[in-house]
Amino acid sequence: MSRIGFIGLGIMGSPMSAHLVAAGHRVTGFDLNEDALAKLTAAGGTAAASARDAVEGAEVVITMLPDHPHVEEVVLGTVLDGVARGTLLIDMSTIRPETSLAVAEEGAKRGVRVLDAPVSGGETGAKQATLSIMVGGEEGDFAAARPILDTLGKTVVHVGPHGSGQVVKAANQLMVGGIYALVAEAIVLLEASGVDAKAGLDVLAGGLAANRILDLKRDTMIAREFRPGFRIDLHHKDMGIALAAARQVDVALPVTGLIAQLIASGRAQGYGSLDHSALLKVVENLSGRP
Amino acid sequence: MSRIGFIGLGIMGSPMSAHLVAAGHRVTGFDLNEDALAKLTAAGGTAAASARDAVEGAEVVITMLPDHPHVEEVVLGTVLDGVARGTLLIDMSTIRPETSLAVAEEGAKRGVRVLDAPVSGGETGAKQATLSIMVGGEEGDFAAARPILDTLGKTVVHVGPHGSGQVVKAANQLMVGGIYALVAEAIVLLEASGVDAKAGLDVLAGGLAANRILDLKRDTMIAREFRPGFRIDLHHKDMGIALAAARQVDVALPVTGLIAQLIASGRAQGYGSLDHSALLKVVENLSGRP
Amino acid sequence: MSRIGFIGLGIMGSPMSAHLVAAGHRVTGFDLNEDALAKLTAAGGTAAASARDAVEGAEVVITMLPDHPHVEEVVLGTVLDGVARGTLLIDMSTIRPETSLAVAEEGAKRGVRVLDAPVSGGETGAKQATLSIMVGGEEGDFAAARPILDTLGKTVVHVGPHGSGQVVKAANQLMVGGIYALVAEAIVLLEASGVDAKAGLDVLAGGLAANRILDLKRDTMIAREFRPGFRIDLHHKDMGIALAAARQVDVALPVTGLIAQLIASGRAQGYGSLDHSALLKVVENLSGRP
Amino acid sequence: MSRIGFIGLGIMGSPMSAHLVAAGHRVTGFDLNEDALAKLTAAGGTAAASARDAVEGAEVVITMLPDHPHVEEVVLGTVLDGVARGTLLIDMSTIRPETSLAVAEEGAKRGVRVLDAPVSGGETGAKQATLSIMVGGEEGDFAAARPILDTLGKTVVHVGPHGSGQVVKAANQLMVGGIYALVAEAIVLLEASGVDAKAGLDVLAGGLAANRILDLKRDTMIAREFRPGFRIDLHHKDMGIALAAARQVDVALPVTGLIAQLIASGRAQGYGSLDHSALLKVVENLSGRP
Repeated sequence: MSRIGFIGLGIMGSPMSAHLVAAGHRVTGFDLNEDALAKLTAAGGTAAASARDAVEGAEVVITMLPDHPHVEEVVLGTVLDGVARGTLLIDMSTIRPETSLAVAEEGAKRGVRVLDAPVSGGETGAKQATLSIMVGGEEGDFAAARPILDTLGKTVVHVGPHGSGQVVKAANQLMVGGIYALVAEAIVLLEASGVDAKAGLDVLAGGLAANRILDLKRDTMIAREFRPGFRIDLHHKDMGIALAAARQVDVALPVTGLIAQLIASGRAQGYGSLDHSALLKVVENLSGRP
Repeated sequence: MSRIGFIGLGIMGSPMSAHLVAAGHRVTGFDLNEDALAKLTAAGGTAAASARDAVEGAEVVITMLPDHPHVEEVVLGTVLDGVARGTLLIDMSTIRPETSLAVAEEGAKRGVRVLDAPVSGGETGAKQATLSIMVGGEEGDFAAARPILDTLGKTVVHVGPHGSGQVVKAANQLMVGGIYALVAEAIVLLEASGVDAKAGLDVLAGGLAANRILDLKRDTMIAREFRPGFRIDLHHKDMGIALAAARQVDVALPVTGLIAQLIASGRAQGYGSLDHSALLKVVENLSGRP
Repeated sequence: MSRIGFIGLGIMGSPMSAHLVAAGHRVTGFDLNEDALAKLTAAGGTAAASARDAVEGAEVVITMLPDHPHVEEVVLGTVLDGVARGTLLIDMSTIRPETSLAVAEEGAKRGVRVLDAPVSGGETGAKQATLSIMVGGEEGDFAAARPILDTLGKTVVHVGPHGSGQVVKAANQLMVGGIYALVAEAIVLLEASGVDAKAGLDVLAGGLAANRILDLKRDTMIAREFRPGFRIDLHHKDMGIALAAARQVDVALPVTGLIAQLIASGRAQGYGSLDHSALLKVVENLSGRP
Repeated sequence: MSRIGFIGLGIMGSPMSAHLVAAGHRVTGFDLNEDALAKLTAAGGTAAASARDAVEGAEVVITMLPDHPHVEEVVLGTVLDGVARGTLLIDMSTIRPETSLAVAEEGAKRGVRVLDAPVSGGETGAKQATLSIMVGGEEGDFAAARPILDTLGKTVVHVGPHGSGQVVKAANQLMVGGIYALVAEAIVLLEASGVDAKAGLDVLAGGLAANRILDLKRDTMIAREFRPGFRIDLHHKDMGIALAAARQVDVALPVTGLIAQLIASGRAQGYGSLDHSALLKVVENLSGRP
């Protein structure tokens, strides 16, 4: 069992850290939110007074932070100064690959082994320990992290060198956002044409157009139920990462570029805290419907 | 068993008419291509000298034609004049809903019962009688056509009033085209970032981004194998139908509008006879890759 | 002076035909609308009882019709049967190039000389005889038509073979639609950022971004005054022509494809009878503004 | 006359600093490039050994740096620590508004008066002192800076509070990029249709589609001459700023989102050092032309 420092005990980090405690690890955590610290204590972990304290003496450090500025501040600014050579740093935040590469480089200078390991599966996945975890970094470090990551997720895959986890996460999010937009356009076309949308989507779900979003969400989308789930605001952040990732390696992604603006429109129209399937509202507003 | 007139004995119509013969129907067919007529004869059907002759005395007429001008010419120009009141006309061509509505209206004036019944599933689906068939028209006419359609396909669904079959087919094609573009953008991003595309797509296929195209085509796309399958040229035609369908009912489909141009680009760049998964070539050319 | 048959005496055709009368031509006109015929009579022309009558004995026939189906019906269906060999047929309707080519081809079979000559400049241009006229067809026929066209417009240009007039008109409309969308996005960005939009656009109008729309429309756009001018509904029709023209010659126009959907959105949201500068409303609605 | 510290003596900063020397100011400059320093000395300015030295004792500091990370490092990291209260800091770099706001805020804490003042007009404008300068910040500070800015540019406009200069520059760049794309699509459509592109664009330049890019660049674009001018690579950077500016204030810009990807495609295809009018190559490659 390992001594783990865990920074970022929010909606995702809280159940994740609890799973690690339950698996027998000694987990010391930090978060700016007092309630989050209390939850960790209640689960059997130890609350630290600062990020620096949380990682003091840790064999493994896990960070689960909102966005790249937080990672820059906490990891580059504090954590790397506070850990011993040989420590394994697993950054599970979803951020732009560029920052993951900077962290890995900075870690390498100090003998800290770094992995980027963003997840998909959301709050439910975190609670049920069924996350998909996409890991970028050295093979050996992945092997070392594997037992810990298996405690948190169901699908744990090493996808390539540093930053690769973020790139795969970005690819996932652009595809999910795009499929939502396509389902939305299909629904609007069907309804406006006087076709029973449910019957129509049932046919689509049985052919080459079949996809998980159609399976899971077509009924709630037709019913205009948009309880999150994964919020538009978060998907908006992720589309920014996808475009930054594309820019970083000089590729052009025209469909992603458009989808990013449609999701931005969702946020701008006040749907940011709805489920990302609410992209339907953006598309139907464009047609002055329903 | 019925006396069926079948017009359009091409790649799709040929195996479809043979299934009808095998099921015990008396099929009289017409096509401008002599070989197509010979095949029908060999299968046990009767070759007619003209479209008019083919439908003479038929209880059911099936048309399977390339595009709306052919339907206008053959159906509006000839067939409707040659059949008796009460005949059931099933147009299985993929055309714009507008034309299907015009055919239905013209049929109604003469007491001919009309269904639009486009299919998906391609040549393989036609040969194996596993097509998906999307049917628009009157409930009673659908019930009457059902036994015949069941001979040709596996999923046979009544989706709404006249033209609805075409609308559902259009929705299917816009979604399929869009998902191909998204998979293509994901592959280009992954490869350019030095990530193993196969490993990356495997992760995506296990999460919310999962879709049938990813399941069936990711290996051939990564290997750049684009044997059709369903050709870019045909998908280009179908995107034109999707946009015409949207225009008909005054809805705006921004993603579809862009995808239509990317598929047009595939055709313009000379990939028209490749499989529609060759949309990957359009996307990677945009990035000067591979 | 010529004997001119003029078909289509609407908002554009009415002042145009009056200019021809005033220039000394003998103009016989036809329109389905009685008031339109009365106006022509009042202006000194002759009202015909049918399109056929209007073109009987004409040396020059001018058609100014709403869209390609009308041209197909009136020109292909009636006019070409009613005129003598050697007649000059000038179709000034804005339609898809494909139809102009079909008319030219059909005319050639009967010895009728055909030009496509769509205009820009709108109602004002028609009234003031300051239209821009883009002409496709044979050089000699253009020379023959020139005196008549000079009576109607200020800029009269022969741009290429049959259909070229329509293509140039289509290029004009895609550019105008696109610039409106760009001005709209600039305004939304400036206003949302707390920048004085007028001051900002003034700077833009002084640099490389300068354009006539910015000159003529920025004040009314900022004031949200959208009296037509040229209606969204008509621009929607024209974007359909632009995309049809692109499809006809197998080119891909991604920006045009997107602009077409934004303009479709304007119509779908109920702004069809506003000026096309009301594209600003589509763009600002996307951002939940103002 | 003022004591001016000038940091960033590149293609733009070099002629600009020379103009200030010529106008009688005492200019002390810094750049990492030795040749740039030598040029300033030759022009009558003083070369400093560091950014810190350059701003020591300056009444006015001008920075002209490539992108926001440089501004963050040089201005936030060094300059603000090295200048006295009351100093006027004019940042003429083109960067995201967000960074300009951060600089202004940090300046305010230390009593330093800050303006963002990006320019357009390129190398030629810098050499001829005919730049357009868009200024954000306090009215009084603008008044103080005005005499200096008038030495550098022809159009000097105060457009709003801090960051506004950047927003207007971003609006300018999105419009310029978009108009290039539209001109490119028009050319491709005209040429593919067999229309004389020059004749066609001449007509467009005489109507509502008229714009400065058409005036200045249509001949070189038709001739495929793409000597910069303003490079695709720089426009690519600026489109990133435009999208960041939109994101900052939560607006959705669909056309800008697409144009950004087309320009990214230009860079990805290896046209980065060509003039931005080379967007034509991206558009024509999409159509497999010429």
